[in-house]
Amino acid sequence: MGDDVPPDHPRHDSLVTRERVVDGVERGITSRAGLVAQGRGEAFDYLLGEQTVESAARAERAAAALLLRADHPVVSVNGNVAALVPEAVGGLARAAGADVEVNLFHRTEARVERIAAHLRANGVEEVKGLTAEARIPGLDHERAKVDADGIAAADVVLVPLEDGDRAAALAATGTEEIVVDLNPLSRSARAATVPVVDNVVRAVPAMAAHARALADRPPADLDDIVARFDADAARADAERAIRSGEL
Amino acid sequence: MGDDVPPDHPRHDSLVTRERVVDGVERGITSRAGLVAQGRGEAFDYLLGEQTVESAARAERAAAALLLRADHPVVSVNGNVAALVPEAVGGLARAAGADVEVNLFHRTEARVERIAAHLRANGVEEVKGLTAEARIPGLDHERAKVDADGIAAADVVLVPLEDGDRAAALAATGTEEIVVDLNPLSRSARAATVPVVDNVVRAVPAMAAHARALADRPPADLDDIVARFDADAARADAERAIRSGEL
Repeated sequence: MGDDVPPDHPRHDSLVTRERVVDGVERGITSRAGLVAQGRGEAFDYLLGEQTVESAARAERAAAALLLRADHPVVSVNGNVAALVPEAVGGLARAAGADVEVNLFHRTEARVERIAAHLRANGVEEVKGLTAEARIPGLDHERAKVDADGIAAADVVLVPLEDGDRAAALAATGTEEIVVDLNPLSRSARAATVPVVDNVVRAVPAMAAHARALADRPPADLDDIVARFDADAARADAERAIRSGEL
Repeated sequence: MGDDVPPDHPRHDSLVTRERVVDGVERGITSRAGLVAQGRGEAFDYLLGEQTVESAARAERAAAALLLRADHPVVSVNGNVAALVPEAVGGLARAAGADVEVNLFHRTEARVERIAAHLRANGVEEVKGLTAEARIPGLDHERAKVDADGIAAADVVLVPLEDGDRAAALAATGTEEIVVDLNPLSRSARAATVPVVDNVVRAVPAMAAHARALADRPPADLDDIVARFDADAARADAERAIRSGEL
């Protein structure tokens, strides 16, 4: 996987990331539509300079604090996230005491099963999303499916790479969302309590590291970190970085 | 195809276009790399407002005039173009008196055959690119293949969604190129006599309509339309639109 990309290639990281998603399609865990979404992300990341901008680093710390202070945090995983950062998902879930739930836009039971197996093979002990007996109101049947004791019962959900409709419908239930999206003005990013404008391959490991670093902080400190995070300012900062980037 | 995208989804058209490319992969006419390319295009189109900007509309008219006044115009078709606009390719070729040639970056004979069959099923009578006995100088063997009586003999080639290396190599032979590319500063766009910074699903039908409207104009009128088109100004205008567009 990525073995044929020379390590000194100027676009090495981006090409290896792309191959990981192509590999996900070959394993049946990433949808073909997910490959298009990857290309879309590549274009925005390119404009962003393929780096974690300062406001995104602050968002990742606030996201970790929000997960740590939650009563029932859940990390939502789709086919792209599973292909790209399966180990980091597990690391973040353990550090933040969060559930991991498979949650697909193009849901098939077979793909849910394969993603769950892939996550378990990468160190995630318990995977939710297989029963999916609850529904998020305001979405059509297939798109609405979530676990009753998972996302449906969560107070904070990390939804990396989520569809705008679904992010808005979940926010409408009062659930706080952390969204990872390279478009700072997407409906998903605007629905989020904490929008993280960064590539998921950088964002999830960074959030895991922050969660470990903040694990012993008292709740008041975590609340303070979340309160000091300004979502509008972070989105505006990321937008400036994208607009001024080299085409 | 696109049947499971809710009709009231705010990004319905973009999602249906995406599914058309996914469908192309399922039929074996579009490559997986083509899916990632579609995603990159989506991101730029989003920044452009998913509309044909004024400079692109002028480029599409100039492109039609350039094809009409050519001695031997060719429309080059790859797996994404075949999946997205097979009928419009035929309409443009008929209106402009152009040949249609299948020309793939990831060439396999089986995929060329399937694309040719798909184009014929969508009303393109004669499809070139199956013998591919000639070579564009300066490209490695597989990437260089073109028909001796097609692209190799053309004076004007429309290459929608072309790789930068191949666009530059073809331009170096003295062939005039019309490139459809949503990144105005890509090497393909910079290699073009007429860069069209627009989505191929809007650009190809628009060029076909312009070709029909200009069909009876005298050569001097067509020359004038081409001469008045300023490629540098069009690229700069599109760049401004992308940088200032709503995210």
